[in-house]
Amino acid sequence: MTTPSHLGEFGRINRYFKPLAAGFAGARGLTDDAAVFGVPEGQELVVTTDAMVAGVHFLASDPPGDVAAKLLRANLSDLAAMGAEPLAYTLITALPKDVGEDWLAAFAAGLAEDQARFGIHLAGGDSVSTLGPILLSVTAFGLVPRGQALPRRSERVGDPVFVTGTIGDAALGLQAVLGTLAIPAVEPLVTRLRRPDPRVNVGPRLRGLAVSCIDVSDGLVADLGHLAEESGCAAVLHAGRVPVPAAAAGDPALLACALTGGDDYELLFTAPEAARGALADLSRDTGVPITEIGRTVEGPAGRVEVLDAAGAPLDLPRRGWDHF
Amino acid sequence: MTTPSHLGEFGRINRYFKPLAAGFAGARGLTDDAAVFGVPEGQELVVTTDAMVAGVHFLASDPPGDVAAKLLRANLSDLAAMGAEPLAYTLITALPKDVGEDWLAAFAAGLAEDQARFGIHLAGGDSVSTLGPILLSVTAFGLVPRGQALPRRSERVGDPVFVTGTIGDAALGLQAVLGTLAIPAVEPLVTRLRRPDPRVNVGPRLRGLAVSCIDVSDGLVADLGHLAEESGCAAVLHAGRVPVPAAAAGDPALLACALTGGDDYELLFTAPEAARGALADLSRDTGVPITEIGRTVEGPAGRVEVLDAAGAPLDLPRRGWDHF
Repeated sequence: MTTPSHLGEFGRINRYFKPLAAGFAGARGLTDDAAVFGVPEGQELVVTTDAMVAGVHFLASDPPGDVAAKLLRANLSDLAAMGAEPLAYTLITALPKDVGEDWLAAFAAGLAEDQARFGIHLAGGDSVSTLGPILLSVTAFGLVPRGQALPRRSERVGDPVFVTGTIGDAALGLQAVLGTLAIPAVEPLVTRLRRPDPRVNVGPRLRGLAVSCIDVSDGLVADLGHLAEESGCAAVLHAGRVPVPAAAAGDPALLACALTGGDDYELLFTAPEAARGALADLSRDTGVPITEIGRTVEGPAGRVEVLDAAGAPLDLPRRGWDHF
Repeated sequence: MTTPSHLGEFGRINRYFKPLAAGFAGARGLTDDAAVFGVPEGQELVVTTDAMVAGVHFLASDPPGDVAAKLLRANLSDLAAMGAEPLAYTLITALPKDVGEDWLAAFAAGLAEDQARFGIHLAGGDSVSTLGPILLSVTAFGLVPRGQALPRRSERVGDPVFVTGTIGDAALGLQAVLGTLAIPAVEPLVTRLRRPDPRVNVGPRLRGLAVSCIDVSDGLVADLGHLAEESGCAAVLHAGRVPVPAAAAGDPALLACALTGGDDYELLFTAPEAARGALADLSRDTGVPITEIGRTVEGPAGRVEVLDAAGAPLDLPRRGWDHF
């Protein structure tokens, strides 16, 4: 196995990263000190950044292509939550010396696969060595018509709350990977953990429909709390309406895990009641479920009341994933 | 000492980072999933990103304000090398759990000081924990009139090579810090190591004068090699003309250290001979020395011939800092 040290920084850039930048003129072939690109008239740039650390956000033994996919998709999910169309990204890799070329090659192949899938390109980056675990960071760029980015904060109270897709797949998938959960049909859950589906087709089409939006990464309850807190209101969540894996529907502990586990990368948003029909059309057009799961209500900013199927308060051990 | 864990991610964002974003509307108060900002008509966005790891690029014991300054200034230097005006930046912090609030407070104060100095603001970011050393990364944004960004690649061969400021201060300062060098008047060198002077006032004014430009971070000889390699030519460097610290001028080993040590964050560029007068004016206006130190020549792409004051080839043990 040849280690990246033998290639050197410029060798690595030439072999693994320049091909990823080939389709984006603004990357300047990764030969300059920076990327340069314009923003079309009438559009604004949307910029988000996320970092992932081995041992915290993924396992060093995870397939590098999965790590690449998750890194890019977490950022694409943030763009979708803003209603933006993906454009390009920059990449930081901090790798310990024992990470070999085979890892880097598989990681770059995963990036290439997702670049093709989502229509984005590498615009620039930095590669450094570290004495610690692998750390990867992406800054992603998207475009949105001027003034139309979806905020997290709503000026309205009393709107229905909607969520795309399903909630809890990744959280249950993680338990299965860790060996603390044995349920049938676990493979699709693990796939959703490792390769989430950022709702890039839904986000831009929520412009003009949703009044506030966030992506679910910390956990459904926690992120609904964030949305409500920014909006200065409370929220009610009907747990029985949340589309969770079958195993979670009948098991209180697994339901709690699904509602608070995070890593869902679904869109959670509020919209006026009058938007229900348009949202049903959007769901049908995109094939992505959109489910009404609660409502914002007057109350202490950020409080989330979770109700069970009978309408009784459901006590959850936590709201979501703690970053620290 | 209260550790950041007690504050939680959102507490840290509120206390340390939201104040840094207050002056930039596009940051949206750090309350959304992403920053949103426009690019004025006729301008392009310049994007650069750099990461620094404790134990590799700085010492964990370095004053946090100096670490903040170096992180920002390294990125500002890249913007200057593109001829861009600084606008905003996003920040990744990956901190081990034993990094306390006092470190974070001093780090944020250093960012605030440089934001005021350079007229930039925090636009967004991500904070994660790590099991490894401190890792910090900035993605910086600048603006440049459309089509006028300075490239690293020149289409011309035979132009004079110029450099701003002085070369080798940081390299000698590092040796002094490490205790391997005892020379008089070392404080200014250490200051330049810890708080480099990105040439933000010179870079934008090189548009229309310089035909190729790079910032000196790996080492003067190495970076001249990069510039020449991209331009498909060789270069001659007159070591005796390079403005180095007095201690290096008379000591071959220290001269080699100065020419190859890196961390200078000066601008290295080629310009037509006809630009000499304008460059002298620019130097006088800005108070930043601009010195002619060599020439691009026909020859193997990237080869740099270093000549001593007598015109004889100078043999250097290496060209610059190896990232791996």
